[in-house]
Amino acid sequence: MMISGTTKIFFMLAHPIAHVRTPEVINPVFSARGIDAVMVPVHFSPEDFAAGWEAMKRMRNLGGLVVSVPLKEQAYALSDEAEAAAEELGAANVIRRDPDGRMVATNMDGPGFLQGVLNDGKDAQGRNVLLVGAGGAGKAIAFALARSGCKALRISDVDRMRAETLAADVSVRYPGLVVTASEPNLQDADLLVNATPCGLHPDTDPLPIDISQLRPEVMVADIVMKPRETPLLRAAAARGCQVRYGAGMLDSQIALMVSYFGY
Amino acid sequence: MMISGTTKIFFMLAHPIAHVRTPEVINPVFSARGIDAVMVPVHFSPEDFAAGWEAMKRMRNLGGLVVSVPLKEQAYALSDEAEAAAEELGAANVIRRDPDGRMVATNMDGPGFLQGVLNDGKDAQGRNVLLVGAGGAGKAIAFALARSGCKALRISDVDRMRAETLAADVSVRYPGLVVTASEPNLQDADLLVNATPCGLHPDTDPLPIDISQLRPEVMVADIVMKPRETPLLRAAAARGCQVRYGAGMLDSQIALMVSYFGY
Repeated sequence: MMISGTTKIFFMLAHPIAHVRTPEVINPVFSARGIDAVMVPVHFSPEDFAAGWEAMKRMRNLGGLVVSVPLKEQAYALSDEAEAAAEELGAANVIRRDPDGRMVATNMDGPGFLQGVLNDGKDAQGRNVLLVGAGGAGKAIAFALARSGCKALRISDVDRMRAETLAADVSVRYPGLVVTASEPNLQDADLLVNATPCGLHPDTDPLPIDISQLRPEVMVADIVMKPRETPLLRAAAARGCQVRYGAGMLDSQIALMVSYFGY
Repeated sequence: MMISGTTKIFFMLAHPIAHVRTPEVINPVFSARGIDAVMVPVHFSPEDFAAGWEAMKRMRNLGGLVVSVPLKEQAYALSDEAEAAAEELGAANVIRRDPDGRMVATNMDGPGFLQGVLNDGKDAQGRNVLLVGAGGAGKAIAFALARSGCKALRISDVDRMRAETLAADVSVRYPGLVVTASEPNLQDADLLVNATPCGLHPDTDPLPIDISQLRPEVMVADIVMKPRETPLLRAAAARGCQVRYGAGMLDSQIALMVSYFGY
């Protein structure tokens, strides 16, 4: 990758910053496609983010931003225009800077999961879904599942109130779908989605759900990208279930981002 | 070069930006030395630079800046601390960002020229110098020559007033040295330094000085980096003069910068 004076720049923002992985995945894509662009990590603390945003709007060779925790809500609030996927979450993770400095926001967390993990959403169509985890990722996936054409959606969280709030929010947007808060039991679910971080530390994390009820016809998907095979997915595969790996999410988001940035 | 979340970032600022060459020269140095750092071009217009500066101070993973025309004076004025080389010029081209956000400025235009073109200044010692060009580059080189131990310094410029102002400014700082404004004639000079852009466009630019008076014992140095051999240097070599190429300046500045950034 040759960085010259004509290279368009993109920033990856998060707090803290050291763990972010998007630059090392997107830069080889820019290179491979002959795109004169580079993404670098930029570390603003949350209290400096608004001042940083004003400056970034004025950077004439800035093509856009990718934003991660805990800056996504601020990014949405500061943007000049937002697509529905960001608006319904009140959070943006990809922002395009138009040549006039206008910042246009979207959110690809849900779409990236659907496209990269659930076969562009086809795996969710007509299914009874149990979504475990109603945090930032769970929220994005809940809205994406609602758009996907699933049959019903139950949402479970260790914080029951959080699950109920999310279920209510999704219902308002998608009144045709039955969305409820639920205990973490499978019942008649035939798609289980883990949107909790359980599995990131496979030696110490508990499983996100009691898997003794897992029937072979239940498809199991995990947002955890690393390790690729979480204890949940290993147990599911051992029971004969179809499994879907979280690792596909990042590549799909990258492809969506590159396209959103106009390449 | 692998850019990850831990990579320290550096910005190259100029207006316009497309022609800057520092990123493509410094990034291979970072790579070759195993330094986890990257420099990207950032384009602020002059009226946005101060706001941009405030944001850059707050970027916790920013290691520093390289600043070019026409932003060097603003960079000096905005810095929290400045070394003598920047202070005497009222202009900074390299800024280190300390971990607490403090911006410490210097100017390597003169030192880079002395080190990379004039054999670390030795070529200037004891010489009668005629410096042609009293613009930004000429100014930096005039002060550096004054520090180098040259015998006398005459400064010529198409704008005679500019030459006189610069000669007076250098005299104030270096009262032991005879510094005068001059017509562009060689007289007894035995070092001629071209600090004008004449030669950048070799087919159309005039020579910076009437070369009919060039004696073989005059050393001739040029700030023009590209083409390496300017019409002036070609004519000088043809007359048997020693010549010094501007191209060496960039590598020297890069080495000075990397060291100033703490590597």
